[in-house]
Amino acid sequence: MNPMRWSVALALVAAAGLVPTIAFADEALEKAAQDPNQWVLPLGSYAGIRHSKLTQINTKNAGKLRPVWTMSTGTLRGQEGQPLVVGNMMYFESSYPNFVYAVDMDKVEKIAWKFAPEQDKFSPSVACCDLVNKGVAYADGKIIAVALDTNVYALDAKTGMVVWVAKNGDPQLGQTMTMAPLIVHDKVIVGISGGEYGVRGYMTAYDLKTGRRVWRAYNVGPDTDIMFDPAKTLDGATGQPVGANSSAKTWTNDEWRLGGGTTWGWYTYDPALNLFYYGSGNPGTWNPTQRPGDNKWSTTLIARNPDTGVAAWAYQMTPHDAWDYDGINESVLTESVVDGQTIPTLTHFDRNGFSYLLDRRNGKLLRAHKFDPSVNWAKEIDLKTGRPVVDPAKMTKEDVNVKDICPAAQGAKNHQPASYDPKTKLFYVGTNHICMDYQAFSVKYRGGFPYVGATLSMFPADHGNVRGRLIAFDSVSGQTKWSVDEMFQVYSGPLSTDSGLLFYGTLDGWFKAIDKTNGKELYKFKAPSGIIGNPMTYMHKGKQYVAVLTGVGGWAAIGLAEGLTKGTEGLGAVGLTTTLSDYTNLGGTLMVFALE
Amino acid sequence: MNPMRWSVALALVAAAGLVPTIAFADEALEKAAQDPNQWVLPLGSYAGIRHSKLTQINTKNAGKLRPVWTMSTGTLRGQEGQPLVVGNMMYFESSYPNFVYAVDMDKVEKIAWKFAPEQDKFSPSVACCDLVNKGVAYADGKIIAVALDTNVYALDAKTGMVVWVAKNGDPQLGQTMTMAPLIVHDKVIVGISGGEYGVRGYMTAYDLKTGRRVWRAYNVGPDTDIMFDPAKTLDGATGQPVGANSSAKTWTNDEWRLGGGTTWGWYTYDPALNLFYYGSGNPGTWNPTQRPGDNKWSTTLIARNPDTGVAAWAYQMTPHDAWDYDGINESVLTESVVDGQTIPTLTHFDRNGFSYLLDRRNGKLLRAHKFDPSVNWAKEIDLKTGRPVVDPAKMTKEDVNVKDICPAAQGAKNHQPASYDPKTKLFYVGTNHICMDYQAFSVKYRGGFPYVGATLSMFPADHGNVRGRLIAFDSVSGQTKWSVDEMFQVYSGPLSTDSGLLFYGTLDGWFKAIDKTNGKELYKFKAPSGIIGNPMTYMHKGKQYVAVLTGVGGWAAIGLAEGLTKGTEGLGAVGLTTTLSDYTNLGGTLMVFALE
Repeated sequence: MNPMRWSVALALVAAAGLVPTIAFADEALEKAAQDPNQWVLPLGSYAGIRHSKLTQINTKNAGKLRPVWTMSTGTLRGQEGQPLVVGNMMYFESSYPNFVYAVDMDKVEKIAWKFAPEQDKFSPSVACCDLVNKGVAYADGKIIAVALDTNVYALDAKTGMVVWVAKNGDPQLGQTMTMAPLIVHDKVIVGISGGEYGVRGYMTAYDLKTGRRVWRAYNVGPDTDIMFDPAKTLDGATGQPVGANSSAKTWTNDEWRLGGGTTWGWYTYDPALNLFYYGSGNPGTWNPTQRPGDNKWSTTLIARNPDTGVAAWAYQMTPHDAWDYDGINESVLTESVVDGQTIPTLTHFDRNGFSYLLDRRNGKLLRAHKFDPSVNWAKEIDLKTGRPVVDPAKMTKEDVNVKDICPAAQGAKNHQPASYDPKTKLFYVGTNHICMDYQAFSVKYRGGFPYVGATLSMFPADHGNVRGRLIAFDSVSGQTKWSVDEMFQVYSGPLSTDSGLLFYGTLDGWFKAIDKTNGKELYKFKAPSGIIGNPMTYMHKGKQYVAVLTGVGGWAAIGLAEGLTKGTEGLGAVGLTTTLSDYTNLGGTLMVFALE
Repeated sequence: MNPMRWSVALALVAAAGLVPTIAFADEALEKAAQDPNQWVLPLGSYAGIRHSKLTQINTKNAGKLRPVWTMSTGTLRGQEGQPLVVGNMMYFESSYPNFVYAVDMDKVEKIAWKFAPEQDKFSPSVACCDLVNKGVAYADGKIIAVALDTNVYALDAKTGMVVWVAKNGDPQLGQTMTMAPLIVHDKVIVGISGGEYGVRGYMTAYDLKTGRRVWRAYNVGPDTDIMFDPAKTLDGATGQPVGANSSAKTWTNDEWRLGGGTTWGWYTYDPALNLFYYGSGNPGTWNPTQRPGDNKWSTTLIARNPDTGVAAWAYQMTPHDAWDYDGINESVLTESVVDGQTIPTLTHFDRNGFSYLLDRRNGKLLRAHKFDPSVNWAKEIDLKTGRPVVDPAKMTKEDVNVKDICPAAQGAKNHQPASYDPKTKLFYVGTNHICMDYQAFSVKYRGGFPYVGATLSMFPADHGNVRGRLIAFDSVSGQTKWSVDEMFQVYSGPLSTDSGLLFYGTLDGWFKAIDKTNGKELYKFKAPSGIIGNPMTYMHKGKQYVAVLTGVGGWAAIGLAEGLTKGTEGLGAVGLTTTLSDYTNLGGTLMVFALE
């Protein structure tokens, strides 16, 4: 890598990042996000570290936690989100049909308001992997909630009345929505799901006040569609501007039109650089033979200016993805000491089993490490080229059943967001420890029908009873400090606290508090249902609470969620967790814990 | 009442009650039911007193209760039942689709087995008042569970495998099942629902070993159908044998064929008399003008021999019911001191607002008292005639909107079973405090379609915010010792203990422990959903637990359960609880509490 090239790149990004000095909603949000008593952003902070400075609950007293109040979500499907706490109010969204609730924490016996969107009844039939939702966002007196049928609602936070609604997609084409919105300045930024239906992924910004669409940026396709500046948008792998037609030229003919790269993960934002970060999903059809080329910018981390939508840089993790290694996992924004220099970085634990440490100013790849020991599809990520060194024996192709690929399509980590503790400088990550056999086949596109093109079978990496691990990980050194084995995939995003605790949930329904220095269990409670939601914490009237949405589902529990029992249904995930129904049931419940 | 007549009656009953001296399943059950560490019968005992001798949790420490484990039922509809505890195992059944669960209490993190019946998909559309279930029964190594579609399942208690299945009705005709079976000797005794579909109610006994049908007794119709012996079966109101054709002659033409009198309540049993007790529901069509006469034996308490099915006596509470005053509520079997004599009695809190104290040997009415102050449809129950003294102004008739009738059709008490404390000799009863306007109209029968014939509107008795009360009641004197007001109908059956506690739940989701001497609240917990289930208690490894199924629904919460919002839907109950959705959501969860 030529240092000069990177200096140029930095200058370009810095110029693009100039922010107008207007008082936007996000300034209040940024301030509120600094207050550990509240939890005003889905990930707790724009940086997405999911760490709290609260210390009332600590390693000494965590054993005295107890549920203090509970509330059914009124739904049975998977709960992937978390509540927000804004001032005296708690807000959360259920799985489909996406009820939104407000609770005044002085009167938890009552629901302050409930919003029940009228849904396009077709949407549940095209949602790939359960009817989940990752939660609401808040800004400027509004709650922003997305419905499965792609309607984006702005609700008056006081009353729940609809302020505006924007239609962001069409379920008839397989488009659905499950992500949590990111609000930056005066914009509501949302993504789209449907990577298994040939949906071409995009990000869209709506005006926070009016719901008017401001910009839409696709991840694959012509430069104007993807809002890449050929001369300025950098390729993180090379440090060079991406050049003209950077996406479309990596696809055969018009296959990019069904190119995937959907955007159903978590988004983070750096106010100093005025860039937001997200990942794109798998390329359209899981059959790689049908789409020669790198299939850019699927499975890519992308940094965009939230005001204009223009991309500052892009870094593709899995060129020509042949394993359904969506790149949608979150990018956690921290400072890292790399080769003696402290720089603003982004850490991303990818489905493909590698952790990526990037310079978030320009997408430069600094480090890449396997974070699960089983990973075998690639030997390493070449820091010089930025590309994986793929094991040819694990490359999938049409009509060949390729065996024992690790990780499985569900990833060494799925969407559940990691936490980062600025003190320990470690990431705490819910991971999967699973492998697969993968057989691609030819598939024809038909709008609103699955466009998958592969059957697969997932299994525990060691063919035993460990399908997940919670790990404490250093993304610079690649060292796993400690890990805790779990019977099932860890599909809940951990929460770390200044008082030395980690909270997370398990697929079989345990809510746990563990010691972040060694993973030792300090408290556990058997929740009504398995946990794929993310604990958060807040203070109310001098008392610290930890809340988590329980309710098993998602791809990890698709067999349970959809009542499937056969091996190849549920995109190959059913066989992996057939025993899950021995441990837990469907059912959504908000659980709130505190010290007695 | 001629004392001589009653002596004859007693002699007749005693003769009918002779039991063969074979070791039946119920002997083991009777013994197990004496063990306060277990809870082997749906009501805890054959007498149905819902009282526990356990004392570890008491008035001093109840404030330290806490949820210790939880388990979603996997369903959203109302949970009207309770778990059983047999040895080391807990068993319970969910609302539709009627999952049955077994949990080994040494391994509560795991479901020992789950049974999911394949249901007739038509049945939910003909279940009048939510898709509820009152729980399983146990005997002889089998769990007996009824499904909404009228299939009765005997499951191996160890494995959950089906031992036998019996079809007890036809959903196409509006027949459904929600009750908890009663097992006596070698018989499984079950009832039938569908009073709003012109279903003619019956009780059926199946052989516990094989599922073979042994007898079926209707409540209305010809003597052979109803299994009344004209010469021996007594009319509790008169002390006389009922005589020939006692039911059919109280109906016009063949209207008895649609005569209602369904049997969806709770059943109790007296081993000494070898009689079991149950009540029959409202007569067919809610329009009384269409069915002149007493409409016997609807709204009647009936005592039958479990082995033969033959009725020993019958006592009709509401002749020619014109208010939907089902008589299905439980009969609690105790000793009572009446006029200085201690006699075996039955206490029944009827929908119609009167408590009935009967000599359970012969059905003789000893006392009748209003247990809710609002009751106005009848001035009193005449102890001489055994009949209510009806206020003519409150008699409903076709095409007249009769106003301000108390109680409402939902009753001054619905099905939730009362508890009785042998020490205090008081009944603890969850009651309703509600009235109605009632307009009957002509209706034609069509199989599988509602046969209701009335629109009604229910409202709080005092037009305020009290719709229910928990009362401590003396069924001999009619005195209410104390009462606790609740915002909504109390639709959860209380549990009393020797240690001075009462446990119950509220429609808006509070699980409460109160002092049984004065109703003072000692503990409450906001459960995930409203409570229409019945707390029970047991000991496991030296620790006392209290368990309750939470999950709002039933007729009381039909608006929430069915997503109804208009006043006349839900058989007039929707308007009564429109505010309930401000407090709770649908969602089934088993909650288990213990001292920390």
